[in-house]
Parts: sequence; structure tokens; C-alpha cells
Amino acid sequence: MPPFGLLPMRAWASLFSQVLRPSGLVCVREVHFQSQGTRDLSPQQMVVREKILDMVVGCFKRHGAKRLDTPAFELKEMLTEKYGEDSGLIYDLKDQGGELLSLRYDLTVPFARYLAMYKVKKMKRYQVGKVWRRESPTIVQGRYREFCQCDFDIAGQFDPMIPDAECLKIMCEILSGLQLGDFLIKVNDRRILDGMLAVCGVPESKFHAICSSIDKLGKISWNDVRHEMVAKKGLAPEVADRIGDYVQCHGGVSLVEEMFQDSRLSQNKQALEGLGDLKLLFEYLTLFGIAEKISFDLSLARGLDYYTGVIYEAVLLQTPAQAEESFNVGSVAAGGRYDGLVGMFGPRGHKVPCVGLSIGVERIFAIVEQRMKTSGQKIRTTETQVFVATPQKNFLHERLKLISELWDAGIKAELLYKNNPKLLTQLHYCEQMGIPLVVIIGEQELKEGVIKLRSVASREEVAIKRENLVAEIQKTLSES
Amino acid sequence: MPPFGLLPMRAWASLFSQVLRPSGLVCVREVHFQSQGTRDLSPQQMVVREKILDMVVGCFKRHGAKRLDTPAFELKEMLTEKYGEDSGLIYDLKDQGGELLSLRYDLTVPFARYLAMYKVKKMKRYQVGKVWRRESPTIVQGRYREFCQCDFDIAGQFDPMIPDAECLKIMCEILSGLQLGDFLIKVNDRRILDGMLAVCGVPESKFHAICSSIDKLGKISWNDVRHEMVAKKGLAPEVADRIGDYVQCHGGVSLVEEMFQDSRLSQNKQALEGLGDLKLLFEYLTLFGIAEKISFDLSLARGLDYYTGVIYEAVLLQTPAQAEESFNVGSVAAGGRYDGLVGMFGPRGHKVPCVGLSIGVERIFAIVEQRMKTSGQKIRTTETQVFVATPQKNFLHERLKLISELWDAGIKAELLYKNNPKLLTQLHYCEQMGIPLVVIIGEQELKEGVIKLRSVASREEVAIKRENLVAEIQKTLSES
Repeated sequence: MPPFGLLPMRAWASLFSQVLRPSGLVCVREVHFQSQGTRDLSPQQMVVREKILDMVVGCFKRHGAKRLDTPAFELKEMLTEKYGEDSGLIYDLKDQGGELLSLRYDLTVPFARYLAMYKVKKMKRYQVGKVWRRESPTIVQGRYREFCQCDFDIAGQFDPMIPDAECLKIMCEILSGLQLGDFLIKVNDRRILDGMLAVCGVPESKFHAICSSIDKLGKISWNDVRHEMVAKKGLAPEVADRIGDYVQCHGGVSLVEEMFQDSRLSQNKQALEGLGDLKLLFEYLTLFGIAEKISFDLSLARGLDYYTGVIYEAVLLQTPAQAEESFNVGSVAAGGRYDGLVGMFGPRGHKVPCVGLSIGVERIFAIVEQRMKTSGQKIRTTETQVFVATPQKNFLHERLKLISELWDAGIKAELLYKNNPKLLTQLHYCEQMGIPLVVIIGEQELKEGVIKLRSVASREEVAIKRENLVAEIQKTLSES
Repeated sequence: MPPFGLLPMRAWASLFSQVLRPSGLVCVREVHFQSQGTRDLSPQQMVVREKILDMVVGCFKRHGAKRLDTPAFELKEMLTEKYGEDSGLIYDLKDQGGELLSLRYDLTVPFARYLAMYKVKKMKRYQVGKVWRRESPTIVQGRYREFCQCDFDIAGQFDPMIPDAECLKIMCEILSGLQLGDFLIKVNDRRILDGMLAVCGVPESKFHAICSSIDKLGKISWNDVRHEMVAKKGLAPEVADRIGDYVQCHGGVSLVEEMFQDSRLSQNKQALEGLGDLKLLFEYLTLFGIAEKISFDLSLARGLDYYTGVIYEAVLLQTPAQAEESFNVGSVAAGGRYDGLVGMFGPRGHKVPCVGLSIGVERIFAIVEQRMKTSGQKIRTTETQVFVATPQKNFLHERLKLISELWDAGIKAELLYKNNPKLLTQLHYCEQMGIPLVVIIGEQELKEGVIKLRSVASREEVAIKRENLVAEIQKTLSES
């Protein structure tokens, strides 16, 4: 849904290309094997990703969401006039005869298209999938053109702010669950924002431009933002100062109350509606025990065109130590209410209010990978439990019979694809791959009707009866 | 890897559009919401898919494979000259300035590109992902242009036939595990095929054309294939008859022995190499206990250009009852050895022999969905365990506090997004969605410091202390 996710920084661009590549292998980039801005995900990266995605999806399921999948490409016309300035970043397919197609830019517009297409009136769904944006790698360093999004949305006409509060609860559960450190969720409302601009005296034609200036607060100082508004966007200085009074405000529910009393804002109908909803939202967030994680922030604008009500964005708060590493993380989750999007598809006026969120998993992957790198944690990329080895020549047949039994019993097992591997090579492979158990068969064992079961860590070996092999391994594995 | 997967039949084209769509909703196709040949996957379909994919991936992991991911699009030049006649089905991206890109056509070529790019010498990997083929929906009815593939491949220089045998073992494990009914895996070798054509007197320039005729055996009779060879492809009738003697042969290891003695075939060096490998393969398959599932079939040709050695294809054997339903399933898994593909990318001659397989999951999804439809089995699309309800007005706050506790304890819970829903509506929702437990809170319960826990199935209610809520629910859930 939101325009983040493709924003890894230099720190993890290098991480991906060096640390998590198959060790010792260098990417020969100059041969141009691969499209700019895309990348393969190594087995190490896939392990990290799958763990994080399991956790995110687990939370979506805990909240009763159904999974949906939509195609990678949509009819081009379905994506037009949905993304404002960002439309230029949409990938089009070549016209090879037939329809004009585009790769999806997010998961929100396809979801809205689905609701319109099948005239669905209510649905709580999640979707995990890749999206594509034609960012220029030379302009925005380190951005990827293909990245993963995890979206949760609630579509339907409901009593106000209950689904919205649940979305914020989900963001809190996921960010807490992933143990990414302290975080804060900024909340605002498009109606408050518009009302604020109106009462400050911004002409409606400049709303969009001024919003995008406001959106820079946090990255640049108020003085710089003010300068941009006045010098570049032609705003009267006194109008800019009025805006400044507002957008530097952030706080909890007390700020909502304060704004209700504000002499200018309280004159604007739209703003009052937004404030009313925010007040109700804070009531629910308090019941959910997460109000202290939420900050009403009048500077939050969000880029996408389709938001109509509450908007939010989660940021990680850096500890001083992290700040020193200059590992800037920014927004890790975001979303908002978009009540008009579904109606844009329906020629027959099928309208469905929606609210949702998107988890910026690419950033989260980067943070977790960075943390693993720092801690020197080794990642197992296979789950193999048992290795089948022999110290003798001409034992391939016995090894194959044995491993087949293990596979059939559901035990994860490997052997070397060699007729006569050396025992040391086999044991070394186990250590290297983190395989905990080795089954050893040789002439002596064959004669005695036993096999040896060896613990790779302790190097202890026990002889067990051949016919008890599977049971003994299962017992050993369940105990460890 | 192989060119199947996109071949659902009329039977399940209608299944997808009618049965598994959100019930009662009709797809308004004439408005053209979606690209031809693509489709959304409903929550019901996603549940079936995820179960099947879990099983397939479980098998890949049991065999020690690592997961890899590659981008949806590749540089166009990476895909050229890899797919023979099928190259016309590749989707190209529009030239929006920069590189020429194409959507991936399978997962095999990107894997080979990965091995070449990072100079990987050995790797056992699996990949699950979508691929895209620009099939004409009017020509090939019911084919999809976007579909999922599940590939397992072993790259590296190893002793002969050990990895090849493991690939066949994996196919057997998956097809048995999914309980799709009886199946057979046809095996042949590209070298035997080429040798056979050579000794029959087919000019080398006609190998490809004659192979594609042979590939039709099973779909059409030998007489029709013979006619095509002679009348359309200009083969001498006696050459066609010689081919006929071979391609109508299929059997076990005894057929391999027979071919070794064949007066013509035994004169061809290539064929002898292939036969030697097949003999060894059958030795290993016997040790794996799957030899009776494998049939040496001289008519198996496989379309793709990149195969160099053993090739195989699994087909489901229909019971007479199934045949009556005219639910033709065809190939459900396939693969083979491709020792030359990686070398095609490397300007510096990085060569890696590979063997692998692809599971035709789209067909398997269709079969399982069809079976569920026939059996009338209901699919739950959410995993919600507990519903939070109230019989009274103005109890939203209590419900929100309560559900928040459940979520925080990891319990999957839902409520209706209404201030004052009717109790009957709430209970009806639970029955409809298959939610097993309801927590009920009202004035009486609030006063007494209890809540009611209701079983949806039995309609029994017990009062439990408010503070024991989570523990009692967890106990009840673990017992059921």
C-alpha cells in the first residue's frame, strides 16, 4: 500500500551483495547477468524472510483475515489515476498484441479492483506478494525495483473507527513481536490536514504541493520546509507561519482536545469530522492498551492519492547506540483509510469503504539481517537432521537403502552423491552444514545387524539395532 | 521447468470461476477488469494451495534443499535461445528506457543464470514461484498465462545417476503423499532417443520435427503419428516403421537389457551411454523401493531444448470411474538432466551439470479442488478460534478490552465491527465461519466478574472467572 519497502540503504545494499551471498563467491556484475535494481535472494536471506513473514502472517490470521492472491500484472487502465505523481514508476508490458498490461505497483489497487470486479461488500483479507516500481537506481541509491509487501485490509461499511483501531493494534503486535526496538506510530487524518491548510489560507490548488513539503519534516528542519513553501511554492510568509504552528505539534489525545478548541481549526467542518474520529480512535486505542504508542502528528501527510481519512505511519525509535551506526530505518509500516478507491472501478457505483496497512517487510528484513551480521549469528539454510555416512568403499547400496527408509519415515536426511566418499569428508560436511546426527554403516555394522548413531556436536557414538533405526532417531531428535 | 502447469481443463476453468468464487458472487467479466488468461485466487483456493505447497516444500526440505528466489523479470537476452519453439510465448516488458526485460518463463533458466552469475559449483535448491507464458487463450482453451511452479534441482559434478535417482524418489514421495491415486513415471534419455532416430535412418535435420511427432503418442494413436511422420514430415515409410518398433516399447529394467541386445541400437555410442545410465538408475530405484513405479518408455521426448540426458514425466493413472468423469489430468510432474544450460551463460566457460524436476502444482490444485467439490467438503478460510460477543447494547468497550487480551495471548479472535450488534447475528456469524468458541459478556457477567464460554457446536455454555479467561480458552482449545 504505501510507497516504502523499496528503500534499503547503502548499509544493506552492501550487506546483500557481500555478506549474505554464498560465501566466498563474488558477483560478477560487469557481465550484466541481471536487471538493474533487482536481485536474487540467497538461501540465507530466504530463511530470514520466511521467519519474518510467518510472524506477520500469523498476526494477520490471529485477526481473522483470509488470504487473497492477484496476478502480477493488471490491465494498464486499472492502475491509471490511482498513484498521482508516482504513476511514472509503473512498469508496462510490451504490446505484443492484445491488451495493454502493467505490473502491479502495490497490493491495494488490485484488492480494490477485486472488490469492484466481484462486487464484494465486506472482506478482511491479507496478501503477501511482490510489487514492482521503476525507480531509477541512479537517482535513488539502493532502492530495489522488485520488493515484497504484506498487506492487511478491512473492507466494508462498519461503525466508525473500530476497524481503524484494529489496524493500529495489528501494527503494534507485529512491531512488538519482531522485537525491532521501541517504535512510535504517527497518526493524522486527511480531513484534518486539508482543513488545516484551508484555515491557514493555502489556496486549494496548492494543497498537494504544500503537503509534499510538509511530508519532509523530520528529514529536514522546519526552517528549510518553510523556506521551500515560501521561496519555491509561492506561499505567503504569514500563511507558512500559521502552518508551522500546527505541523510542529504532536501529542496524544490531549492534543486532539486542544485542536477542538483551536479558534481557526474549529471553524472547519472537515477538520472537525477528522478530530471527532481521532478522539474516538484514541478511546479504542486506550482499550487496546496501545495509546501510548500513538502520536497525533499534524505533519504526517503520506504521499498516495487514495487516502481519504485516518492515515498512519510507524517509525522505529533509535537508541543512541543505533544512531551512531548511522543505520537509518525510517518508516516500517503504514496505511490509512481509502473510502473512494473501490468506487473508481465500478461503472455501476459499487462503493466500499476500506482501511488497511502495509508492513514494510523489506526494511524489517534488512534490520534483522544487519542484526544477525553484527551478532555473528550463523544461519542454517537446510533443515537436515541426519546424514548417512560410511567409512568404507562400495557401500553406496547400503547407504541408499538406509536413507530411503529415513525419507519414508519423514526424517530429513542427506548423503554425498559419491560412490566412495571419505569418512572425514562426510563428517566435515555435517559440521559445516550444522547437521546434528550421523548414521554410520560399515562392514562390521552390516555383519552385526547394527548401525552407529553419532552426535556431531559431542562426537559420541552408540550402536543401535538396524531394525530400530527409525525409532531411535526419532527418539533422539525429539529429545534434543 | 517443463511446459505444463498452465494446462487446466474446461472442468476446472468452470470450477474456478463458479464454485470457488466468493459464494453468490458473479464475475462481471464483460467490464474487463482483468487481463485475459489471468485470475485472482480466492481465499478458498489459497487454503488448498497452501496445504499442497506445504507438503511439496516439506518434501524438498526432507531432501536437504535450500530455498532460492529470483526476480520476476530477467534481462531479455538471458532467456533467448533456451526454449526453442516456445520462445514466442515469453512476455517482454515495454522499453521504458534502459534494459530490455522479459518475465521469466520457468524457474530453471533463472536458476542456471544464478549458478553462472555467482560461479556456484554445487547446490541443491528449491524454488516456488510464479512464471508467465503468453499462451493464446483462444487457441489453447483454459490455459492460464500466470501459474505457479515448484522446482527442485541438484547442480554439481557427482557420480552418475545418484542425484537423478533422488529426483525420481522425490516425485514418488510427493505424488504418494498427496494421495492423487495411482501414478507412473515414464523415463527415457535424450541420448537413447537421438541414437534411436539415427539408427532408424532419420536425417539429423529432422530429429526435432520427428521428436515432436513422437511426443504426441498417447494423445493420438501410433497410426496417426506414423501418418504425420510420413505425409507431413516426409519420412520414408520404412524409417517410420522402424521408429514404430521402438516407440511402442515400454517396460522395466528388462527392456533396458533388451535394448542393449538390440542389433541396431547397440551400434550407436550415444544410445549405449544412455542405456548404461538407465541400467544404473534402475539399480538405485530398486534400492529406493520405487522401481515398479517407473516405466522405461521410448516414446517420451519432452519439448524443451535444454535436456541432455535422462528425462522423466509422471502421469496419473485413471481408475475407470475417473475416466468416466472425463477429467483428464495428464502430466503432473516432470524433469530431466540439463548439463549444458549453465555453460550457455558463462563467457568464461563455467559449466555445471544439473538435474531437476518440477511439480505441476496447478494441475494438482485442480484435482484436489475438484475432489473437494465432489465430496462437498467445506473449506474454512480463516483460523479464528474465538468470537467475542455480547447480548447487550453499549458493550463495545468491554468487547474491545476482552478481545485485546485474547490477541495478546496469541488467540485468534474476531468480533463484529458494530457498536450494538444483535446476539443472533453474532452467533450466526460463528456458525457460518466455523468458529468453534464464543466468549459472551453482558451486564450480569460484568457484575459477577465472570464471562460465558460457549461451544458453537454443542451450544453448551459455562461460566468462568474473568481472570481465568485466557487460561480456560487455551485449555479448551488444546483439548478439542
